[in-house]
Amino acid sequence: MTESIPVRNPRNGQYDYYLFPPTAKELADLCQRMRQGQLQWQAIGIEGRIAALQQWKQTVQNALGSIVEALCVDTGRKAESILEAQLIASSIDRWCKIATDCLPPQSEKPSSVSFIHLRQDLEPYELVAVISPWNFPLLLSLIDTIPALLAGCAVIVKPSEITPRFIKPLMNTISQVPELASVLTYVEGAGSTGAQLVELADLICFTGSVATGLKVYQAAAQHFKPVFLELGGKDPAIVTASANLDHATSSLLWGSVVNAGQSCLSIERIYVEDSVFDQFVSMLVEKTNQLRFAYPDYDSGQIGPIISDKQIDIINEHLRDAKEKGANILTGKGYVEMIDGGGWCFPTVLTNVTHEMKVMTEETFGPLMPVMPFHGIEDGIAKANSTIYGLSGAVFAGTVEEALFIAKRIKGGAISINDSALTAIIHEGEKNSFKMSGMGGTRMGPSAIKRFMRQKVYLIKTQPIASPWWFDAPH
Amino acid sequence: MTESIPVRNPRNGQYDYYLFPPTAKELADLCQRMRQGQLQWQAIGIEGRIAALQQWKQTVQNALGSIVEALCVDTGRKAESILEAQLIASSIDRWCKIATDCLPPQSEKPSSVSFIHLRQDLEPYELVAVISPWNFPLLLSLIDTIPALLAGCAVIVKPSEITPRFIKPLMNTISQVPELASVLTYVEGAGSTGAQLVELADLICFTGSVATGLKVYQAAAQHFKPVFLELGGKDPAIVTASANLDHATSSLLWGSVVNAGQSCLSIERIYVEDSVFDQFVSMLVEKTNQLRFAYPDYDSGQIGPIISDKQIDIINEHLRDAKEKGANILTGKGYVEMIDGGGWCFPTVLTNVTHEMKVMTEETFGPLMPVMPFHGIEDGIAKANSTIYGLSGAVFAGTVEEALFIAKRIKGGAISINDSALTAIIHEGEKNSFKMSGMGGTRMGPSAIKRFMRQKVYLIKTQPIASPWWFDAPH
Repeated sequence: MTESIPVRNPRNGQYDYYLFPPTAKELADLCQRMRQGQLQWQAIGIEGRIAALQQWKQTVQNALGSIVEALCVDTGRKAESILEAQLIASSIDRWCKIATDCLPPQSEKPSSVSFIHLRQDLEPYELVAVISPWNFPLLLSLIDTIPALLAGCAVIVKPSEITPRFIKPLMNTISQVPELASVLTYVEGAGSTGAQLVELADLICFTGSVATGLKVYQAAAQHFKPVFLELGGKDPAIVTASANLDHATSSLLWGSVVNAGQSCLSIERIYVEDSVFDQFVSMLVEKTNQLRFAYPDYDSGQIGPIISDKQIDIINEHLRDAKEKGANILTGKGYVEMIDGGGWCFPTVLTNVTHEMKVMTEETFGPLMPVMPFHGIEDGIAKANSTIYGLSGAVFAGTVEEALFIAKRIKGGAISINDSALTAIIHEGEKNSFKMSGMGGTRMGPSAIKRFMRQKVYLIKTQPIASPWWFDAPH
Repeated sequence: MTESIPVRNPRNGQYDYYLFPPTAKELADLCQRMRQGQLQWQAIGIEGRIAALQQWKQTVQNALGSIVEALCVDTGRKAESILEAQLIASSIDRWCKIATDCLPPQSEKPSSVSFIHLRQDLEPYELVAVISPWNFPLLLSLIDTIPALLAGCAVIVKPSEITPRFIKPLMNTISQVPELASVLTYVEGAGSTGAQLVELADLICFTGSVATGLKVYQAAAQHFKPVFLELGGKDPAIVTASANLDHATSSLLWGSVVNAGQSCLSIERIYVEDSVFDQFVSMLVEKTNQLRFAYPDYDSGQIGPIISDKQIDIINEHLRDAKEKGANILTGKGYVEMIDGGGWCFPTVLTNVTHEMKVMTEETFGPLMPVMPFHGIEDGIAKANSTIYGLSGAVFAGTVEEALFIAKRIKGGAISINDSALTAIIHEGEKNSFKMSGMGGTRMGPSAIKRFMRQKVYLIKTQPIASPWWFDAPH
């Protein structure tokens, strides 16, 4: 029996929930059972796996209320919780369609040598571990899980210990689909459970911070395991003088402060062409001041509490550092307000910021909007690329051509043109992370399924002629 | 100035060559120059890169004689050296064709949301380091290099310090093509030069042993670099009772002892159905005894010297261990013969072997052919899969259907059907390594080029309508 871990409630600061990580033996046994189940899961083929996932979709629909209720307590916000739960259904449908399209039966084809044919095959990794974060606890626990299941893998998910309450209602829905329950399970636990999974699984998917991602990568290398990392960002937006500023400010406000900025793809730096800088800032400030905290009720406003207490410290430190170095705080209090035990950060527009400030160089993961002017597009691009991150970004300009010219030079995997953070709603493009923002294959599109499979080729000699003897072989 | 490293000649054991690794400063400056050159290399596009590689092909053809001469001294064998040098031309042509087919201009397409279009893009990693081994020094230094160049990367290659003599004549051919010389260079050096490259490059390709591959993976994780590893194998062959034994023995002899067994994809374990075991062994012994050492002249026989003196020790240890545990040695002396300072291992058929012996569990990288009977196909498959490796394998059976049934269950990336080691001559299939035999994308086929590029997606809002406000967004 391991020790229980107390869990904080982000709306009141109370430790009102306990999670019970499995012992090392229990976890090893569980993985063994999943490996056993995987044999049959692979054998039933893609049609069988789609049927099981569609059945699961129904059981999830029936339990939406209890899942949303748990997520609300986990995260302290409601609209995003409803969205997370509702998206399971469309996500399952989308992945099932992609899988149907991208996993066709492979047939034999001739090679460059006339008497040798090739046949390609795909073989799933047996057991995938998914280690997922607290900012969208349900959504991000499934983003790698569903494609891995469709590939034919068994999946063991360890959500963040900060937001574990949704696990039980979700596990109830899984247990109602026996085929699925033998290859999909969630476990409670913190870092040490995650570290054990790196040893026990065949492939590891991690979503979270750069600091933890580095540790996961190093542990994976120690055990010679492949790993997919989706880490932090410091996503830039570039707004040129020709952009529609009303549209740009609305879009960037949403992209910066949705989920109280606790999103890897949220905009964290805004660069505006100097000639329209003042106008942009005044419009952004005016719109920002229309927002409200979701307090005292979930529906009182748009901005929920900061979910993790460690994140409260980080946001406060970024604000303190920025103020000390001369930044102007144009909205909000300039710190995370503690209200009834919860931490609330009002969306904060900052100007007079520099690249010496943490708010411009480190991931904040809060609703801050530092805005900096640039002079000429080369300057804007250079500033946007002046970062160790490379997840995504946004460009606003008067024409798509002007925006694309800039976007092509931004070092990031997904660039939204004339909108922010579109990867939050469009899951079709394939993208890789640049620099420290991630490692390994895309988690969107057909490749996202195939990355859970090893390619295998059969090289078939079609004629019973003698083998090439030494170097008389045809080349 | 770093210290020079003496290099052993495999035919006479003399240290008759010295290499001079660059200092840390020189290497860093070189990488910086390559990064500078990469900007233009990427800008000239795929047609420009193909033109430069085709020009290089001509300069290589003009220098084949000096390249082969150096390779002969590096490796002590001639036929394989000629083959390696000749294959550059067909390899360049093959990759240029694949690149033309797989890197088409990307066009815009609609997404699931009507007013958002997608455009995919591919962006090369700037600087790739290729760390290559001594068994096919030229061929394996180019297997990742050519696709990386076509992708638009600059490439710095560090061949093994055991076989560096070919570098100078090859560099001469590169320097004759200025566009190429600014993005492709070879450096001399041993492990510490390789370790520096892991820090300096953006992506690392390593071909070599599992032990060193693990270290490279761990160093890459330390510096948060992506890595492709192509490591060792202990490739099994399964021969059923229905197989054509004349054909199987000829093919397996070639697959086991070509290049004196110093090939990652050589057959290192042969499992034969018990009813035909004796017949198989006697045919294999008879054919083996027709082989000769390539001594005193390169053309005196088919079997060259063992290239690395450390490998001589490993082969001797595997033979000693096998004999001690009861194996029968049916051909050869049972040890590596030292002749005029070179180490020569006669192709060795072993029977009465068990999975407790190193010769059945660790990579030998020598011309040994341990043959073990199996009873029933389940037993054969289980024995073939009883290994930490999973590179490739071979199946011989009376029909392709029977062979494929077995091949599908062998855990390995490339399975030859009714022949051995066909990946040595067919480079079209896409394959991944299983277990400890490697990590990362396929080095064959279109994906081999794309793994050197990051996918990037532009999400383009096509109508200037207001941004989705909070969760009224279309999902």
